[in-house]
Amino acid sequence: MKHKSIPTTGISRYEPDKIFVRGANLVDELMGQLSFTEMILFHLNGKKPTPLQTKVLDAVLVTTMEHGFTPSAISTRLIFHSAPEALQAAVAAGIMGAGSTYLGTMEGCAALLAEIVEAPEGMPARAEAIARRFKASGSFIPGLGHPFHKPDDPRAPKLIEIAEQAGAKGTYIAALKELSTAANKAYPKYLTTNATGAIAAILLEIGIEPAIMRGIAVISRAAGLVGHIAEEIKRPSGRYIYDMVDHGIEYKE
Amino acid sequence: MKHKSIPTTGISRYEPDKIFVRGANLVDELMGQLSFTEMILFHLNGKKPTPLQTKVLDAVLVTTMEHGFTPSAISTRLIFHSAPEALQAAVAAGIMGAGSTYLGTMEGCAALLAEIVEAPEGMPARAEAIARRFKASGSFIPGLGHPFHKPDDPRAPKLIEIAEQAGAKGTYIAALKELSTAANKAYPKYLTTNATGAIAAILLEIGIEPAIMRGIAVISRAAGLVGHIAEEIKRPSGRYIYDMVDHGIEYKE
Amino acid sequence: MKHKSIPTTGISRYEPDKIFVRGANLVDELMGQLSFTEMILFHLNGKKPTPLQTKVLDAVLVTTMEHGFTPSAISTRLIFHSAPEALQAAVAAGIMGAGSTYLGTMEGCAALLAEIVEAPEGMPARAEAIARRFKASGSFIPGLGHPFHKPDDPRAPKLIEIAEQAGAKGTYIAALKELSTAANKAYPKYLTTNATGAIAAILLEIGIEPAIMRGIAVISRAAGLVGHIAEEIKRPSGRYIYDMVDHGIEYKE
Amino acid sequence: MKHKSIPTTGISRYEPDKIFVRGANLVDELMGQLSFTEMILFHLNGKKPTPLQTKVLDAVLVTTMEHGFTPSAISTRLIFHSAPEALQAAVAAGIMGAGSTYLGTMEGCAALLAEIVEAPEGMPARAEAIARRFKASGSFIPGLGHPFHKPDDPRAPKLIEIAEQAGAKGTYIAALKELSTAANKAYPKYLTTNATGAIAAILLEIGIEPAIMRGIAVISRAAGLVGHIAEEIKRPSGRYIYDMVDHGIEYKE
Repeated sequence: MKHKSIPTTGISRYEPDKIFVRGANLVDELMGQLSFTEMILFHLNGKKPTPLQTKVLDAVLVTTMEHGFTPSAISTRLIFHSAPEALQAAVAAGIMGAGSTYLGTMEGCAALLAEIVEAPEGMPARAEAIARRFKASGSFIPGLGHPFHKPDDPRAPKLIEIAEQAGAKGTYIAALKELSTAANKAYPKYLTTNATGAIAAILLEIGIEPAIMRGIAVISRAAGLVGHIAEEIKRPSGRYIYDMVDHGIEYKE
Repeated sequence: MKHKSIPTTGISRYEPDKIFVRGANLVDELMGQLSFTEMILFHLNGKKPTPLQTKVLDAVLVTTMEHGFTPSAISTRLIFHSAPEALQAAVAAGIMGAGSTYLGTMEGCAALLAEIVEAPEGMPARAEAIARRFKASGSFIPGLGHPFHKPDDPRAPKLIEIAEQAGAKGTYIAALKELSTAANKAYPKYLTTNATGAIAAILLEIGIEPAIMRGIAVISRAAGLVGHIAEEIKRPSGRYIYDMVDHGIEYKE
Repeated sequence: MKHKSIPTTGISRYEPDKIFVRGANLVDELMGQLSFTEMILFHLNGKKPTPLQTKVLDAVLVTTMEHGFTPSAISTRLIFHSAPEALQAAVAAGIMGAGSTYLGTMEGCAALLAEIVEAPEGMPARAEAIARRFKASGSFIPGLGHPFHKPDDPRAPKLIEIAEQAGAKGTYIAALKELSTAANKAYPKYLTTNATGAIAAILLEIGIEPAIMRGIAVISRAAGLVGHIAEEIKRPSGRYIYDMVDHGIEYKE
Repeated sequence: MKHKSIPTTGISRYEPDKIFVRGANLVDELMGQLSFTEMILFHLNGKKPTPLQTKVLDAVLVTTMEHGFTPSAISTRLIFHSAPEALQAAVAAGIMGAGSTYLGTMEGCAALLAEIVEAPEGMPARAEAIARRFKASGSFIPGLGHPFHKPDDPRAPKLIEIAEQAGAKGTYIAALKELSTAANKAYPKYLTTNATGAIAAILLEIGIEPAIMRGIAVISRAAGLVGHIAEEIKRPSGRYIYDMVDHGIEYKE
């Protein structure tokens, strides 16, 4: 079988004395001139970010970096304890926790917000239809509700405030408010807008596509997990966590 | 068996309406106020970074984010092609490439620089002893030489320039220069100071410990790999890479 | 917040001088008495397998272990080349390729076979409805067709023959034949029954649930990937694969 | 830059109607004829295994598959809870726990056994020298001692018994006994020969190289972790483990 096609990329190429990223000379045009957050946006979009984009992405990356002993942090600690020869594997184990149960809900919420914004019948009507649809199916609405941060997730209003003060147009933020209003009419219990809901809205404001949002959480979480390893090196907790779980779990046939 | 000890952490705790990271209130003191890079340093060190620390870490994170179709980028592309349901796993597969062969060399170089700085006999004498030691064992000196960037890796002098202009004290940069001088006396072929060597020096300048340096590369690489997935979604190359390798490899018993 | 509930398990418990797996004493009742394949079935089901179950699972595990330079094998080679300190991470990178694109199709096929078997209107009618449904949506039917093994995937009839000779009842095998017949009536091009289709059918015959089938492929593939690492240690190809891809890919903005 | 060399493999190749593994036709010569364990050995060695090799490898794979809520099992449970869309990633997270702290010790022990067997001064003298060397450096001797299975790890004598009854020559088993004798003379506390020590000896007896031993543990552990996921699907413990750790860990600045 012959090659079906030659793979191509527009991200990067290099020569003996030059490296290009998205057409820019890494050494002359990017290093020392862009912050890491600006570089992430440049790498994704192929053009220098606006101050709004940078401000919003910084806020999102700062927000999701840390939330105590999440499944990700526990896994990273346990794997680093088991395989200290490979810090990179311990981080990898942890970032696999950025799945559909927790951080991944931002994608689902973003899809709903896009649906609301594009609805020909207007945002409130579509938001109400969505709330009814989820209630009927007995599902959670992604971006709303929180098992622990009650009555309100304090991160969500702060994220929205940061985006608004930085000049976000507000279309998707408005959609999120409609979704929250509709959900709180449809469901009997109060549902807070949670951090992943606010993140979905403000990442849409700066043009990040839903399909890649989970990747933003992965970058942020990777940084948080490296911090956990730095603490694990100085003050190990991995083996005590192992002990706590292995002896705390109950055997029942 | 009872619990041997209770695991502890000083990184984070939370209450229904507050999240604390390293003692600071995430919403009131960190979000919207720190850049992602500043947050990484705050999370690692427990105190707000100096401008020097931020400038240097930004430069390092920008530098290592991208270098074309590395083993990491290829693996991320192939795994995303095979399992598009789990972006997080594709990034995880790629960051496992931040091992001892490539990015991990910064740790080895950092250890040599620390040895040179602390040598009672003075830096040049120790640098020469190290160069002889490596030459005798037939090993590469980590941080020196590059298979493709010849005669010089353009990233290294730029990284050092950025650190010096931001006010780095220069102790470890001086040690790196001694190491380079000694190596080029001992080895017959010219050895450039490569990016991982310069990174080792300037991360030491801002107080990052060698044991965690590979983690900095992991954070940066995670961001680069998310960019590769963003391109893969729009312009797939994974299946063509699979095809290229599977049909390009030669079967020889 | 207090513990919501104590986690429980029925898989394993141990004492200083005994380890129990699914209620059996590992040393006295399992080691030396069960083959690995039998132990996998015992661990999954909590009872000793029948000869049919063992024969079928052995055949499946042997079949999926190896298929040349798959995305999994390439990733494992590249990650091992990059991080030889962590063989376990290289295998982990590769098994993440057991996703929805390739091996994961056995789950989708298994769901269709269960649907056909349970259809009140009879198997042929439901198989035809499924074929029409997939054709209308422009999707591939999981378990049918193969990009390379043409006209027929030689593994599928062999797997079915092994299961039948070992005494499989044949319900799901019959459903697979109905699906193949219906698909080849509905689609213009001949569609072979591929290995994942046959595996779906015969794993259903031995009571493996669709949700866990991908796990069977993961076990098998893990073994294949360890073999690739064994060859990589003696006869490295990772760096040449890196070279082939990095220099073979075309830069196009 | 041109290709430096063409990568090669001797493992597998395929044609439209045939797949070859190590030169054998998968469909005609391997499927239905080899057990999974025999296939692992054939894939590794390129020739059909002896009954001794199969018996020993089966015993090793059965032994290491399960040991309750290890760091690997906990991580797999937590990642599957967080990302149920990707069973393969949950297994990958867990097998990364097969590192140097636990299962990886078999490599270290195997290296010592090889050293003892090859010592020109005889096995007892070399074993005593090794015991003194480790005691002086304050290190554990890999393969000896166990934190929980006291006074003796019941798996070790069983593994050796299985190998001996299957006809192992006994050279490396004898070396392990010398090491145990020497260690128990040198150290004040009784040191049991543990499972990884016995595994190191009997895998050496069947020609498995130390560098790949960790891979055997990875294969076995992958199977155990799939069993944990099968239980997690029916009887979830992941979220309770998360809860137990997150609320059980103590915050101390």
